[in-house]
Amino acid sequence: MSIHIKAATIKVSNPKELKAAVADAKPGDTILLQNKEWKDVLLKVSGKGTAQKPILIMPENKNEVIITGQSALNIGGEYLIIKGFHFKNGYSPKDDIITFRINNDNLANNCRVTECVIEEFSQPDRFHSDSWVVFWGKNNRLDHTTLVNKLNAGPTIIAELNDERSQENFHSIDHNYFKGRQRFGSNGGETIRIGVSRYSLTTSKTQIVHNYFERCNGEVEIVSIKSGQNNVSFNTFVECEGGLVMRHGSKNVVEGNLFLGNNKPFTGGVRLINPGHHIFNNVFKDLQGTAFRSALSVLNGVPNSLINRYYQVKDATINNNTFINCASVLFGAGKDAERTLSPQNVVFANNLFIGGSDKIYQDDNKDGGVIFKDNGILNNKANNLPQGLSPAKVSEIKKGEFSFPYNKSIGADIKKLSFVTKEETGASWYKPQTIKPKRANKSFEIKSTESENIKATLEKMIAGDTLLIADEGYLRINESLVIDKPINIMAKAGLKTKPIFVNTSFKTLNAFIIIKNGGELNLKGLAFKGAFESFGDTKAGIASTEEPMNKHYKVNIDHCEFYDYNEGSYSGFKGSKSTLADSLIITNSLFRNISGTGVNLGEEKDDKGIYAAEYTVIENCVFSNVLGSAINIYRGGNDESTLGPFVTIDHCTFNEVENREQGTVVKLIGAQHASLTNSIFSYCGQGGRSIEFREYRWDEIKVDYCN
Amino acid sequence: MSIHIKAATIKVSNPKELKAAVADAKPGDTILLQNKEWKDVLLKVSGKGTAQKPILIMPENKNEVIITGQSALNIGGEYLIIKGFHFKNGYSPKDDIITFRINNDNLANNCRVTECVIEEFSQPDRFHSDSWVVFWGKNNRLDHTTLVNKLNAGPTIIAELNDERSQENFHSIDHNYFKGRQRFGSNGGETIRIGVSRYSLTTSKTQIVHNYFERCNGEVEIVSIKSGQNNVSFNTFVECEGGLVMRHGSKNVVEGNLFLGNNKPFTGGVRLINPGHHIFNNVFKDLQGTAFRSALSVLNGVPNSLINRYYQVKDATINNNTFINCASVLFGAGKDAERTLSPQNVVFANNLFIGGSDKIYQDDNKDGGVIFKDNGILNNKANNLPQGLSPAKVSEIKKGEFSFPYNKSIGADIKKLSFVTKEETGASWYKPQTIKPKRANKSFEIKSTESENIKATLEKMIAGDTLLIADEGYLRINESLVIDKPINIMAKAGLKTKPIFVNTSFKTLNAFIIIKNGGELNLKGLAFKGAFESFGDTKAGIASTEEPMNKHYKVNIDHCEFYDYNEGSYSGFKGSKSTLADSLIITNSLFRNISGTGVNLGEEKDDKGIYAAEYTVIENCVFSNVLGSAINIYRGGNDESTLGPFVTIDHCTFNEVENREQGTVVKLIGAQHASLTNSIFSYCGQGGRSIEFREYRWDEIKVDYCN
Ligand SMILES: [Ca+2]
Ligand SMILES: [Ca+2]
Repeated sequence: MSIHIKAATIKVSNPKELKAAVADAKPGDTILLQNKEWKDVLLKVSGKGTAQKPILIMPENKNEVIITGQSALNIGGEYLIIKGFHFKNGYSPKDDIITFRINNDNLANNCRVTECVIEEFSQPDRFHSDSWVVFWGKNNRLDHTTLVNKLNAGPTIIAELNDERSQENFHSIDHNYFKGRQRFGSNGGETIRIGVSRYSLTTSKTQIVHNYFERCNGEVEIVSIKSGQNNVSFNTFVECEGGLVMRHGSKNVVEGNLFLGNNKPFTGGVRLINPGHHIFNNVFKDLQGTAFRSALSVLNGVPNSLINRYYQVKDATINNNTFINCASVLFGAGKDAERTLSPQNVVFANNLFIGGSDKIYQDDNKDGGVIFKDNGILNNKANNLPQGLSPAKVSEIKKGEFSFPYNKSIGADIKKLSFVTKEETGASWYKPQTIKPKRANKSFEIKSTESENIKATLEKMIAGDTLLIADEGYLRINESLVIDKPINIMAKAGLKTKPIFVNTSFKTLNAFIIIKNGGELNLKGLAFKGAFESFGDTKAGIASTEEPMNKHYKVNIDHCEFYDYNEGSYSGFKGSKSTLADSLIITNSLFRNISGTGVNLGEEKDDKGIYAAEYTVIENCVFSNVLGSAINIYRGGNDESTLGPFVTIDHCTFNEVENREQGTVVKLIGAQHASLTNSIFSYCGQGGRSIEFREYRWDEIKVDYCN
Repeated sequence: MSIHIKAATIKVSNPKELKAAVADAKPGDTILLQNKEWKDVLLKVSGKGTAQKPILIMPENKNEVIITGQSALNIGGEYLIIKGFHFKNGYSPKDDIITFRINNDNLANNCRVTECVIEEFSQPDRFHSDSWVVFWGKNNRLDHTTLVNKLNAGPTIIAELNDERSQENFHSIDHNYFKGRQRFGSNGGETIRIGVSRYSLTTSKTQIVHNYFERCNGEVEIVSIKSGQNNVSFNTFVECEGGLVMRHGSKNVVEGNLFLGNNKPFTGGVRLINPGHHIFNNVFKDLQGTAFRSALSVLNGVPNSLINRYYQVKDATINNNTFINCASVLFGAGKDAERTLSPQNVVFANNLFIGGSDKIYQDDNKDGGVIFKDNGILNNKANNLPQGLSPAKVSEIKKGEFSFPYNKSIGADIKKLSFVTKEETGASWYKPQTIKPKRANKSFEIKSTESENIKATLEKMIAGDTLLIADEGYLRINESLVIDKPINIMAKAGLKTKPIFVNTSFKTLNAFIIIKNGGELNLKGLAFKGAFESFGDTKAGIASTEEPMNKHYKVNIDHCEFYDYNEGSYSGFKGSKSTLADSLIITNSLFRNISGTGVNLGEEKDDKGIYAAEYTVIENCVFSNVLGSAINIYRGGNDESTLGPFVTIDHCTFNEVENREQGTVVKLIGAQHASLTNSIFSYCGQGGRSIEFREYRWDEIKVDYCN
């Protein structure tokens, strides 16, 4: 005898009703969220469905519920399906958006989040760390979800393994579309992290399959596996500046993934640490990354390693992968005075190479720890081929838009493989919004006698507009000008001297112009004088804000002049702590009479690899009578997650700069790519150095044609 | 015909009444503040008295009005006398306690603050800068006031010179008692500053006379003159670790001051920069300071100096001073690659020396810029006496408790001089309070099974009490223990193993024990384990608070053990940013399995000369398997205001510590006095260095008997 109860459909309109409805729901019931904007809501859903009859929680109509403001979703109980939630225009009030637990006593099991969208739902402060989806419990699933460009610190997705209730979890992360993640400029920009070093010796068994990763450039780890026996397979990685990394934990499987670099710089593949991994049937194509971002890198370990450092690679098999036109395949990566333990009993066999670097693959230890055999290469008859590599013939097999080389015994088994496409992933209903500008761009002209109108004019300008300064007079301002959109400010053509910004309030201003979140600035033909009559000081010509930011700003300064900054903490340009310039380009400009620093990108002092500008270019500039450094770039510590800072200094003149004891004229501490050329140092650095790098052996540094 | 109006006496009981009463007062009126505690009051007094009939504002009864909480006093108008105000148990809500202006349109002139007391009225955050008395306008006076131990940043007294209304001001700062100022551990610990570099080329004409400075040890500048034509005369400086400094501005007069060092280390005298000063009739006695703290130092200047750097000394006269048993008299102080301009046309004549260093006086330039003539020395017939010095005879003249040498043509004119005594200065009515302890000290015994009672027990303990841990078990704590008074925590004698502190909450704790303002800790025989079962991490064994502090703490750790700290930011001991340990002494202890730093005194990263501990002593300790540095001490930049850090490391063993690229096992960045002896380094610093100093040429560094 069976009793058939008809499933109910319950509509709810606020978090309290939702919570009660889910708690009371019978297996098979559906809870509908009322069509509207759900703002500042902490949604807690905990209920009990069954495998056959889960409880379904979803919007009344697709695309007509959006969750905004400071909002989050906690899931408890079992067999719940959350479908079609759309988070945008806000950020988490705590440290996660979707969490598979209500609290430590109520973890979710067998729950599913599907067809959801999370769009830039990022903390306003880029160093306020959180995650978008946090797994606890077992057998939970995130699928067919679109995750767009997380801006702040913290992995987009985490699985936690603190105790047995969340270990051997068989979670599935599948068919998701990871749509971009901007360079974060620090460790903490991972897209997925499974486990954490402290619990990395436990088994996770999480499945990361059939996902599409597009330009996930947060840091060197796109996927960071920190636990054992996970499966990361059949995913597609497109133009990702980083790799799939077995960071901690053993016996992980990496099968049938497609890595497409499109020859973009820094695009990476797979990186291995710890014992027992199996890597096979993957295709690596047009990857330009080297070192830790190699198509394949197998690291050296650390003797007697602490849990969060580098265990030795042992007993791994890397077979039947195809490498097409990749810049680096590297064994013994990271070898240095500390990482001295070479990989041991690593079999590298039946892999196929097409094109690539001259070396094809490279072993920095050469102690037999890696067993190279039966690998093949197309059309390369050089007689210095590395050990275990012979010429091979291939046919071509078409797969979707690509055609791949195929050989039945070496390389990936293209015949059987089916690579996931963008269209198969993410929330099918979701169409990104496009925003049209309100009007065409225009110029606003201001005379020096109208200085008091600058602020109001800036406010009515839209992205791309230009503020033209019409005459040579003093621009008398009483508060800092704020730039929070792309704006041009320039002197009108033909002026005899540069218009001069001065502070005519009795307050000290942080800067004449402050860049806030969303701001970009083009500046041309202007002067910024830090001390004027008996008025308050101005601490910097241009500065990024002291307030939190999560977007990277751009500043372009041409033909400008910065002078009379009278205190040691003052500077011509200052990038504030925790802000990141995508690019700072200064050309044809003069910095003089500055008691602090000319260009200060050294406010971040922590030795965590954080820095203030990704690309800094300073050309044809003069620094004269500067008490501190002319240029100060700082990235401290030995973090290996990031690419920047990139620094180019060319055709500059340094005159009477930083002669104090132990002083440095141009500080390029931790710059990973630096070039300082064609420059003149005159009566500079008498008590210390002209240039200081403190670089690592892998950094790319050039100094040339300087006196 | 004259109209005689009887002066009124008005009693007021709140700030509003006070303001109205002063505004309405007639010359000669008296305003009485009601006897009571005036808490959280912003007192604004602006009125118009006359030279003959000032308006008097004072308490109803002496010593029965106290001003507490967040309170301040602004003075405007003219001929007001503020008498007998007593500030204690609070701090300024803004950046000053007593200011001689209401706002920029109403500066005080001819006003007087007398017989007042300001007791430790300091911002709770030591780096929140303010001042106790700020002069604006002209002809204002602070006299017979007692100023007790300012704890936070900022000069105790400032005179501002922003425009003509405050220049040539003839302010008088006289007969005040500066009763102690603790070492501040950074620039910004001046007792008096007159002017500021930006306006230092203007004339101030401030009189600082007949004051008594007792142990004003804030920083290298006790009095910092940054303007022209001031007069600093007839003051007494007792055991001050710093000097009277002509920092900026010209033509200042320093006459008839008495400097008594009592042979305490670092006690200083007068330091000269800029042209035109006259220094005469001063007595320097038993001063042990050298370099910038010499009894007399005349600095080298900087070519083309910016306004806030070092102008050349020229056209100065230093005559008829007496130096008794002083360690250093130095011409060309600070000479280095930047400070290259020697003093010129400086006459050093008719000065008298009794005892002192072997060199008597020293000229580091020897280019004739200083003209030495007619100086005399008692009982020294060495035939290598420096130029301009001959043996001299003296008689003894008794002055108060001292007897001084006298010669009618050389040395100070003791016959005419009368040195100010403590009793002649400060508020005559003021008697400092003494506080008696509530009871005799005692011990509280706790078993490991009673861990949950530790917090409550600590709360009922008084300064000096002891918490005894009675057995070897785990001390299970769920939140950090807070120490805000002097407390001992120790294992009971005779235990077989150390009791172990562990975190059994699911939260991450900042530390097992956190030192807050007022805290001192003696720790003995205990272990602190950072990771335990699946519970939350603990980031440090012992740490100072992240909250603001203004008192220096002391920690003594003996026979303790710190282990299992699993993240790079974790450490055994951590001094938090902006806190200063007076002393940290660690003996016979073990630091092992730490992914961060063993002893972390490097959280302060700014290059402003700020550091985390004045005295660090680490003896007989073992650091084993530490991923970061074993010991990290940081004082960045080239500030010359402070004495610390003093570091002693002896008989330590470093095993498998910081082998990463560019890593350093023991970082002693900027330590001014360091000794590392009798220690063993085993498999340490493979990628970098064992020890890093980055020291200046004047620092005192010793490394000896290490492998
Ligand atoms: Ca990472
Ligand atoms: Ca100072």
